[in-house]
Amino acid sequence: MPITINNPLDMHLHLRDADMLKTVAPLSSESFSGAIIMPNLVPPVSTKEDVIAYKKRILNASEHPNFTPYMTLFFKPTYSKEFLESVKDEVTAIKLYPAGITTNSEGGVSGFDVEELRPTLEAMSELNIPLCIHGETNGFVMDREAEFVSIYEMLATNFPNLKIIMEHITTKASVEALDRFKNLYATITLHHLMITLDDVAGGMLQPHLFCKPIAKRPEDREALRKVALKAHPKVMFGSDSAPHPQHAKESCGCAAGVFTAPIALQVLTELFMEHSNIENLQAFVSENAKRIYTNIEVPNKTITLEKKPFTVPNSYGEVVPMYAGETLNYTITAIQ
Amino acid sequence: MPITINNPLDMHLHLRDADMLKTVAPLSSESFSGAIIMPNLVPPVSTKEDVIAYKKRILNASEHPNFTPYMTLFFKPTYSKEFLESVKDEVTAIKLYPAGITTNSEGGVSGFDVEELRPTLEAMSELNIPLCIHGETNGFVMDREAEFVSIYEMLATNFPNLKIIMEHITTKASVEALDRFKNLYATITLHHLMITLDDVAGGMLQPHLFCKPIAKRPEDREALRKVALKAHPKVMFGSDSAPHPQHAKESCGCAAGVFTAPIALQVLTELFMEHSNIENLQAFVSENAKRIYTNIEVPNKTITLEKKPFTVPNSYGEVVPMYAGETLNYTITAIQ
Repeated sequence: MPITINNPLDMHLHLRDADMLKTVAPLSSESFSGAIIMPNLVPPVSTKEDVIAYKKRILNASEHPNFTPYMTLFFKPTYSKEFLESVKDEVTAIKLYPAGITTNSEGGVSGFDVEELRPTLEAMSELNIPLCIHGETNGFVMDREAEFVSIYEMLATNFPNLKIIMEHITTKASVEALDRFKNLYATITLHHLMITLDDVAGGMLQPHLFCKPIAKRPEDREALRKVALKAHPKVMFGSDSAPHPQHAKESCGCAAGVFTAPIALQVLTELFMEHSNIENLQAFVSENAKRIYTNIEVPNKTITLEKKPFTVPNSYGEVVPMYAGETLNYTITAIQ
Repeated sequence: MPITINNPLDMHLHLRDADMLKTVAPLSSESFSGAIIMPNLVPPVSTKEDVIAYKKRILNASEHPNFTPYMTLFFKPTYSKEFLESVKDEVTAIKLYPAGITTNSEGGVSGFDVEELRPTLEAMSELNIPLCIHGETNGFVMDREAEFVSIYEMLATNFPNLKIIMEHITTKASVEALDRFKNLYATITLHHLMITLDDVAGGMLQPHLFCKPIAKRPEDREALRKVALKAHPKVMFGSDSAPHPQHAKESCGCAAGVFTAPIALQVLTELFMEHSNIENLQAFVSENAKRIYTNIEVPNKTITLEKKPFTVPNSYGEVVPMYAGETLNYTITAIQ
C-alpha cells in the first residue's frame, strides 16, 4: 500500500551557495515543501540584504515549485530590536553557533553571557522569532552536547517566551531536557536516527558518516528513536543534510557533514514502517514543525512512496550521499 | 644535555611484507635493538616455515645491524604441544586476535572457550611462550576494550603461569586490571599516550590517527600516561606502528593504523622530559620488556637524542607518519 506524506518539511538544511547550491537545491525542493536554511555561508548571512539575495539564489536554483526556503540569520548579540523588526518578514529563525564549533562558525558566540545576549533574545521573544542553536561546548567530542544542556537550560529559564530549538540533537541528555522546559524544542536528523559512532569509526573509518555533532552511543540513538518514532510534539525532522565535495570528505582532514536530502523521506518511511509507527511519520516530518514554527506558511505537496527498491546514486554531482550505491526498500513514486 | 637510550625495544610492531616491508624495516631497525613482529600477514604467519621465511625477509630488508625481529605466530587453538616445542626456538610469542577485530584478523578466535583453548595455552605456559592479545570484543567501539577485561581475567585465572600481554591498551579499565593479576602485562603505544578521540574526530576527521583500538577519553589517556611515565614494571613500549599506503588512509573506508616507528623515540623523549620522568624512559622502552620477556636476547644499540628541531617528513615512501610535516623538539643525533 502506498504511503503518502503531505507537505514534508526539513527544519535544518544546508544548501551552500554557487555551484553546490545548484546541485543540491533541486533535490530538496523536489521532495520537500519547505526547509529552514542554515546561514553559515562565508561570510555568514547576517543582513536583510544577505537574506533577500540568498533566498533569491535558492529559488532560482530550486527548479521545483511549491518549495519555500525559510531563511535564517547568523546570530549576533549585536542585533537590535529595530533591526529584528525590520527583517522579521524575511527571517523565520536565527541560528546561533558557539564560535568555531562546526563548518563556517568562526564568527559565532564565545561564552554565554546572559546580560550580553539579553537585548537580542528578548527582542526575538517579543517578535516570535525562534532561536536555533548548535548546542556543543568545546569539550571532549563525546561529551560536548551533554555539557551544553546546562546552557540550553540557562537560556530557557532566562528567556521563557523564546522558542529555543536544540538543533540536531544526538544524545539521551538532550532528549531528557526536552520535557523539563516548555520552550525547548528539537530537530533530529536522519543520520542520527540511523547510526552510532560504530558506523563512523567501528569498522573502517567512514568519512561520509562523519558529522557534527558526531554520532554517539547506542543508548543515545535509542533515546532519539523513541521520541522521533512516537513523534513527540516537541521534535521535528531536520536533516542537517550538509553537502561537501567528495574530495573534501575523502581526504586528510575530512569536513563534517552527511548528505541525506535526496534519500531522507525514503529512509524515514522504512524506519517508521519497520517500527510500526508509520502513522506518526506525518507529524514528525510536517505537523510538529507547523505547530512549533507558527510563523511559516507551507506550500502544498504530496509525496507518495511505495515499497520498491531504490538504488541510491553513487553521487549527486560531486556530493556522495549517505547509503551511496546501496539499495533502499522505499521509492518516491509520485510528487504532486 | 644529550639523552641516551640503551637497547630500545618495540614490543608490538607491524612490518607487513614485500614493498611495504622494504620501506618500513629500515626505519625500525635503525633506531631499535629489536621488535616483536606481528604475524597478521595474508595468510597469517602460522607455521615454522612461515616464521623462518618471514624473519629472513625482515632481516634482508632491515639494512641496519644489531636489530632482532622477535617473531610471533598467529594464535590457533589447534597448535599442539609438539608443534610448539618444535617452533619454540624461532618464536618469541604468540598473538591472539579475536576474529575480525582488526586488519587481517579474519582467522582469529571466535568465542573464548577455556576448554578449547586449554591444551595450547597450557603448553605455552610450560614452554614460557607469552600470549599477546588484541583485547577487544565486537561491542560498541568505545566499550570494546573495557568489555574484554573480563576475558583477560578469565584467561589470567585459568592459566596462572601463562604470561599474558594486553596489547596496545587504551583504557583506564585495562590499566586497573594490570595490578589485579600477577600474570597480566601490557604494551602501550606512542599514539595512545598522545591522543584521544578528540584528535581523531573532534575537529576535522583525521584518518592518519584512526587506529584499533580507537583512541579513547582524556581520563583513559591520563591512566596510560600515569603507568608509562613511572615505567610501571608490567608495562612496555609497543608502538603498534602500522603502515598503510596513503591512498588506503585517505579514502572512503580508511584502514586502521598509525605509523610511528621513525618518530617514536623522539616523541617519547619529549613526553618524558616534559613530565620530568626522563629517568624512567629507559625502563619503559627496554628494561621492563627484558624482564617480562625472559626469552629474548637484545643486541646492543645506543641512541642519543638532543633537543634540536626535527621536522617529520611528509611521508616515508607512500606511508604518512604521525606528526607528518610537524616539527618535533628532539632529534636522534647518534646511533651506536
